[in-house]
Amino acid sequence: MAARKENSTCPVARGLACVGDAWSMLVLRDIDRGLARFDQLSESLGIAPNILSRRLKGLVEAGLLDRQRYSEHPPRYEYVLTQAGRDFIPILIAIGAWGRAHRGEGMLSRLVDRQSGLDVEPELIDRVSGAPIGSRPLDLIAPED
Amino acid sequence: MAARKENSTCPVARGLACVGDAWSMLVLRDIDRGLARFDQLSESLGIAPNILSRRLKGLVEAGLLDRQRYSEHPPRYEYVLTQAGRDFIPILIAIGAWGRAHRGEGMLSRLVDRQSGLDVEPELIDRVSGAPIGSRPLDLIAPED
Repeated sequence: MAARKENSTCPVARGLACVGDAWSMLVLRDIDRGLARFDQLSESLGIAPNILSRRLKGLVEAGLLDRQRYSEHPPRYEYVLTQAGRDFIPILIAIGAWGRAHRGEGMLSRLVDRQSGLDVEPELIDRVSGAPIGSRPLDLIAPED
Repeated sequence: MAARKENSTCPVARGLACVGDAWSMLVLRDIDRGLARFDQLSESLGIAPNILSRRLKGLVEAGLLDRQRYSEHPPRYEYVLTQAGRDFIPILIAIGAWGRAHRGEGMLSRLVDRQSGLDVEPELIDRVSGAPIGSRPLDLIAPED
């Protein structure tokens, strides 16, 4: 399955081949908000250590995380986002906006612009036309052989 | 795991509790590009029928897909996106843009604006400030008890 998606001509499938499960995405979310160490992530996510290890290893191999040693004895590591990892964060913010719109009942954390203090309203636009994605017809063009 | 995420105060976790795996996202992608029937999806995705069935059932239960009968004898169904499902499509387009940027080697399909013929360049902005997400400091505010 993974191989098929990695070799796909579809960039969505290729992206999902790297970060295509909920735990991996939640690991990226937590590292982006400042949790860097295994124990912090384990406590925040409440997942089994072996699952967390596997996800961290996968994200390092996929180039979304760097592993940096912060203690020699005993050897201990922390995780930071690479540029590819940072580039994935807006996708998580878009998923959060979807969650707020469609699963928003009860208490929910909010994302606010520090300068204005206003709630952020994420929207995906086409930088070229300036129009929101979904507001104009798009064509999917298969690659030429 | 799922229960924990559905009850989370984090809207990202809530979104991922509905659509948090690669197959579900690829099913949404295919239905958005016009594949509606089980056999079409099965062929496009190359996954086992039982896995596809489970994902379709989950997406219907989560309210992202509607199941509509198109044949009485034998009973046959096709799948269409609900509003919640359509609202998820820009997230897939953002994942595609990430895949293109970071896994773009070789042949890749493209998404073009039908009117201008130009490649779409998806970017997540804050509708309120107009600024790209990531260009200004944001604060995550936990809900008050």
